[in-house]
Amino acid sequence: MAVLGPNRYGKAETRVVRVTRHGDAHRIKDLTVSTALAGDLAEVHLSGDNSAVLPTDSQKNTVFAFAKRHGVGAIEDFALLLARHFVDSQPAIHHARVAVEEHAWERNGAFGHSFVRSGREVRTCVAHHDGTGSWVVSGLRDLVVLNTTDSEFRGFAKDEYTTLPETRDRVLATAVDVSWRHADVSEDVSPDVLPDVSPDWDKAYEKARAALLTAFADTYSLSLQQTLYAMGTRVLAECPGICEVRLSLPNRHHFLVDLAPFGLPNDGEVFFAADRPYGLIEGTVLREDAPDAGPAWE
Amino acid sequence: MAVLGPNRYGKAETRVVRVTRHGDAHRIKDLTVSTALAGDLAEVHLSGDNSAVLPTDSQKNTVFAFAKRHGVGAIEDFALLLARHFVDSQPAIHHARVAVEEHAWERNGAFGHSFVRSGREVRTCVAHHDGTGSWVVSGLRDLVVLNTTDSEFRGFAKDEYTTLPETRDRVLATAVDVSWRHADVSEDVSPDVLPDVSPDWDKAYEKARAALLTAFADTYSLSLQQTLYAMGTRVLAECPGICEVRLSLPNRHHFLVDLAPFGLPNDGEVFFAADRPYGLIEGTVLREDAPDAGPAWE
Amino acid sequence: MAVLGPNRYGKAETRVVRVTRHGDAHRIKDLTVSTALAGDLAEVHLSGDNSAVLPTDSQKNTVFAFAKRHGVGAIEDFALLLARHFVDSQPAIHHARVAVEEHAWERNGAFGHSFVRSGREVRTCVAHHDGTGSWVVSGLRDLVVLNTTDSEFRGFAKDEYTTLPETRDRVLATAVDVSWRHADVSEDVSPDVLPDVSPDWDKAYEKARAALLTAFADTYSLSLQQTLYAMGTRVLAECPGICEVRLSLPNRHHFLVDLAPFGLPNDGEVFFAADRPYGLIEGTVLREDAPDAGPAWE
Amino acid sequence: MAVLGPNRYGKAETRVVRVTRHGDAHRIKDLTVSTALAGDLAEVHLSGDNSAVLPTDSQKNTVFAFAKRHGVGAIEDFALLLARHFVDSQPAIHHARVAVEEHAWERNGAFGHSFVRSGREVRTCVAHHDGTGSWVVSGLRDLVVLNTTDSEFRGFAKDEYTTLPETRDRVLATAVDVSWRHADVSEDVSPDVLPDVSPDWDKAYEKARAALLTAFADTYSLSLQQTLYAMGTRVLAECPGICEVRLSLPNRHHFLVDLAPFGLPNDGEVFFAADRPYGLIEGTVLREDAPDAGPAWE
Repeated sequence: MAVLGPNRYGKAETRVVRVTRHGDAHRIKDLTVSTALAGDLAEVHLSGDNSAVLPTDSQKNTVFAFAKRHGVGAIEDFALLLARHFVDSQPAIHHARVAVEEHAWERNGAFGHSFVRSGREVRTCVAHHDGTGSWVVSGLRDLVVLNTTDSEFRGFAKDEYTTLPETRDRVLATAVDVSWRHADVSEDVSPDVLPDVSPDWDKAYEKARAALLTAFADTYSLSLQQTLYAMGTRVLAECPGICEVRLSLPNRHHFLVDLAPFGLPNDGEVFFAADRPYGLIEGTVLREDAPDAGPAWE
Repeated sequence: MAVLGPNRYGKAETRVVRVTRHGDAHRIKDLTVSTALAGDLAEVHLSGDNSAVLPTDSQKNTVFAFAKRHGVGAIEDFALLLARHFVDSQPAIHHARVAVEEHAWERNGAFGHSFVRSGREVRTCVAHHDGTGSWVVSGLRDLVVLNTTDSEFRGFAKDEYTTLPETRDRVLATAVDVSWRHADVSEDVSPDVLPDVSPDWDKAYEKARAALLTAFADTYSLSLQQTLYAMGTRVLAECPGICEVRLSLPNRHHFLVDLAPFGLPNDGEVFFAADRPYGLIEGTVLREDAPDAGPAWE
Repeated sequence: MAVLGPNRYGKAETRVVRVTRHGDAHRIKDLTVSTALAGDLAEVHLSGDNSAVLPTDSQKNTVFAFAKRHGVGAIEDFALLLARHFVDSQPAIHHARVAVEEHAWERNGAFGHSFVRSGREVRTCVAHHDGTGSWVVSGLRDLVVLNTTDSEFRGFAKDEYTTLPETRDRVLATAVDVSWRHADVSEDVSPDVLPDVSPDWDKAYEKARAALLTAFADTYSLSLQQTLYAMGTRVLAECPGICEVRLSLPNRHHFLVDLAPFGLPNDGEVFFAADRPYGLIEGTVLREDAPDAGPAWE
Repeated sequence: MAVLGPNRYGKAETRVVRVTRHGDAHRIKDLTVSTALAGDLAEVHLSGDNSAVLPTDSQKNTVFAFAKRHGVGAIEDFALLLARHFVDSQPAIHHARVAVEEHAWERNGAFGHSFVRSGREVRTCVAHHDGTGSWVVSGLRDLVVLNTTDSEFRGFAKDEYTTLPETRDRVLATAVDVSWRHADVSEDVSPDVLPDVSPDWDKAYEKARAALLTAFADTYSLSLQQTLYAMGTRVLAECPGICEVRLSLPNRHHFLVDLAPFGLPNDGEVFFAADRPYGLIEGTVLREDAPDAGPAWE
C-alpha cells in the first residue's frame, strides 16, 4: 500500500531586480528567489483537491510585492520575511523554505545610475520557518581560488591501482561552495516589519568570506581536506554567530605539462587546467556546542 | 571548540566508455562515474596526514580497470562492485558511495560498429556500501514530457497576491527527475565476482520508466502534485522490488499567448514556453512497509 | 571620422509551441525562432530616431500570430513566411534573416495527447529575404555519432612538438554540426499564403540526415577530414536540391586508457572520453556549378 | 560534381595556465587557446593522405611549449607568435588563425602566491597570419552592464502586431560582446622573438574597455542602437590604433512588474529580469579610412 512521504512545492528562480533611487546615486539588488512550501498537502496529491494550494504564481507575485513594500536589504532578512509570511498567512502551510541568491553589481565609474555586474561569487542563503522557529543558512558559491605553491600531496595510501606520484609542490585550485549555519535567529519579527534585532548578515558575510580566503591562502596545505578544515575553523573563529560550516571543494586539477620531449624544463610554470574528472572534497566543521540543526539543511 | 563533522571525498565525473567486440556487432556503454569515500579520515583534516587517503586518482584508475576486468552490465552492478571494493580493500574506508550516470546510444542503422547518441533521458544510480550492507537507488533525469490536454488547475487557495485565473484545460509539461529505492540488494557479492542474484536492474528500469510515462499520460490531472503521486504509485505497483520513489517535477510553464490584439482566437493552439521562474513540485511515495532507508538517500 | 557599417536587429530565441488538435491525435511543433532585420537604420544609430524601427516585441508577436494564422509545417516555410512578411510590410526594412530551431518530440505510447521530447539532434534553418530573392540554409546540430573501429590516423606531418603515436585503430566520435544550402527557393510566395511550390523540406531533411549517418558509418576513415568530405559529398549525391554543405566536426577524443600498470591489456575496450581540448575540423563541400551564395551564410 | 570549398582544422580550447615566479610575488595567466590551420589540405579530404596534416595534438603541445619558452604577455602577442610559427614551420600551411581567451585573476589579499578569479569579463583576441601579413582583432565578452535610468524607447514603427507601449524611462541592460580590429600590426616579428614594436595591447584593451563603459553610462539612450553606435565611436575616438568595432548587444529585458493588483505603485523600483526571448542589436562602427579587413573577421 502506497503512502505519501515528504513533499513540498513552490516557485523556483524568480528573477527580481530591485532599484532604489535616492537622489542621483541609485542602488540595485539582483536576486534569484525560490520558495517551497509544505504542510497539509495530502489531499492535493491523493485527489487533486487544490484548496490548500497557494499557487506558485501567487508566491512569485509575493516576491515582487515584498520587494516593493519592504525593500531588499540583506538577503537573509528578505528570505525570512517571505518564509514567515507564507506560514503565517496560509492555514495549510506549516513550513516554508526560501532560498535567495544574490548577484553582485559594482558602480560603473562615478555614474550614479550605471552598474557593472561584478562577476564575484554568488551569495546565497536559505531560510526556514515552521511557525515555531526559524533557521538561516548563508553561504556562497563559485568563489574560484588558486595557490601557486605551498601545497603538497604525499604519504597517501597506495593500492594496486595507484600510479600517482607524490609531490612536494603543486598548484591547488578550487571553486568554493560553502554554507554556514547561524546559531541564533531572532524570532521577534512580524511578517510586515523588517527585522531589526537579527544578526548583521552583511557583516557576517564579509567576515566569513574574508576568513575563507585568508585560510585558503595562509594554510600550508598537505591535502585539500586539511585546507577545507582550516577554512571551516577559520570561519567559526571569526564569526561568533556561526555554529556550523559545510564545504564542498572540487579539486580543480592543474596538471604540470611534461615538456621534456621538447627539451624544456617545467619547474611549476606551465599547467594544463583539466575539466573532468575532478576530486571532490566535502566536509563539515561545527562547534562542539552547536545547537540542533533542525530543518536548516533540508 | 571546532570539531569535524560528516565528510567524504572522491573522484567526480570520470567519463568512461566501454566497448565490447563480439564479432561485428559491437556494444558500447557510456558512463559518468563518481566515487565518494568516508571513514577514519579525521587525521587528514586535522593534520594533513594522508596515510588513510586513497588518492582520487587511484579511484579513477579503479573505475577504468574494473570496466576492463569485470565489464559493464547494469550500472547498478558496476556501482555496487566499486563500492564494495573500496570498503573491502581500504582499511580506513568504512563507507563508499558510487554514483553512475549512463548515456544511451542507439545503433547507427545496420552497422555493427557505428552508434548514434540517443538523446533519451540519462539513467542514474547511486550505490552505498558500508561493510555490513548495501543500498541502491536507481532513477533517471531529463525525461521531458508534455500533455496537450487533460490538465486543469482550479479551486486553489487565493490570497491578496493571487492573480492567476483558474483553468480547465492547460498544457502540462515537466522534465522528470526521479529516483527509486530498491528494497532488497543481495549481499552475496564478492568484489571480484559479478553479482548473479541481484535484482534485474535493467528490467526494473524499463518497467519503472514505462510506469512513469504511462501514469503521466493517463492521469487526468487536477494538479501536478496529483500527477506526481500517480507516477510514484504506478512505479510501486509495477515494480515489486522498489519500495520508495522520489520525484522532482519542474512545471515547465507553457503560457497561452494572448492573440486577441491581433484579432485571432487561441483555443489552446499557440503557447510561449517559459524558462524561469518555474513551479517545482517535489514529493515522495513509498510503501507502508518500506524498510528503513539507511544511508540510501545521502 | 566614424561611419556606420553593417548592422541588424531583431528578437532572438522566441520559444513557441504550436499544438494542432485533429480529433484525439494531437500534434506539436516546438520551435525557437530568431528574427533579424536590416535596412534604412542609420538614423536610429546616429540620432536615436526610432521611426524606422519595428520593435523586437512586435517581431515576437508576429511569430506567435503567424504560428496561429498559418500553422507551422516545415520550419523552412515558416522562416520564409516571416522573412518575407517583414520585408514586404516594413518600408524601411530591406533584408530579413529568420533562424528557426526545431526540438523533436515523439508520441508517448498510444496516447494522442501525450509526448516525450526525443532528444534527437536539433533541426535548424536560416532563411533570408531581401525583396528580390530568398535563400534557405537548413541543417542540424548535436547529432552525436561514434564508430568503434574502421578509423586510423597515421602518416601525418611531424615536427619537434609531435609526440602523438600513429594508430591503425581508434574510436572516432563527433557531434555533427552541419548546414546545407538549397539551390532553388521558390519566389512565388505571398506572405499570407503557405508556399506550395517550395522544396519538400522535410523529405530533404530526412535524406540529408540519413546520408550523413550512413557516410559516417561506411567510410573507412584515415582522418576526420576524409570523413567530413565523404559526409558532405554523400549529402550532395542524395539530395539534388542541395548545392553546398558546411560541416563543423569536433573530434570528441576517446583516449585508450593505459591499463598496463594494473597488469591488464586494453585492446580497444576501455576509453576515457575527454572534454577539452578537442580537435575541430571544419570544411565545405559544394557542387562545381553551385549558384552564388548571396547572403545565405550571413 | 562535388568540390572541396574552404576548410581548416586545429585544436580548440586548450586550457593553459602559465605561472611566473619572481620572488614571492607570483603571476598567473589563464588562457583558453584555439588554433586553426589552412593550406594545401585537399588530399587529406579527398584520399585521407595525412602528409600535410600537423596533428592537432602537436598544435596543443606547441601552445604549452611556447607558454614556457616565450612566456605569456599580452594575449595578442601570444596568438601572433603561434600563428606565425605554424605558417613559417609547416610547408603545407598557408594560413593560421589563433584565438585566445583570457580569464582574469586578482591577488588574494597580500599573499604573493594566492589568487581569486575575478569574474570580470573574458578578454579575447583572434590573430591571423598568412605568410604575407598579420591581422589582429581584440575584444571582450560577458561584460554585463545596466543603467537604471536615462533610457527611453518611443517613436518607433508600429504595425498590426505592435502592442508595446512607449516609454520615457526604462532599465537598459546588456552583456557586451565586442571585437575591435587593430589597423597596424607589426610584421617585424620572427617566431622565436617576442614582438617589441607591436601595439601596446594591454593599454589598448584598458582604454577600449573604459570607453565602452563610459559611453554606455553617459549616453542618454533613445534606443539600444544609439547606445551601440556611441560605444563604437567612443572606442575609435579613444584608441587611435583601432579602425573598426563590431558589437553584439543582447537587450536583457527588465520588465516593470505590475503591482497595481496588490495596491502598490511601481515607479521604476521592481523589475522582472527575463531570460528569453531577448532583443539582439548587432552593428559595426568603423573609420572612413579603415584599411581593408582581409581575413581578420573570419
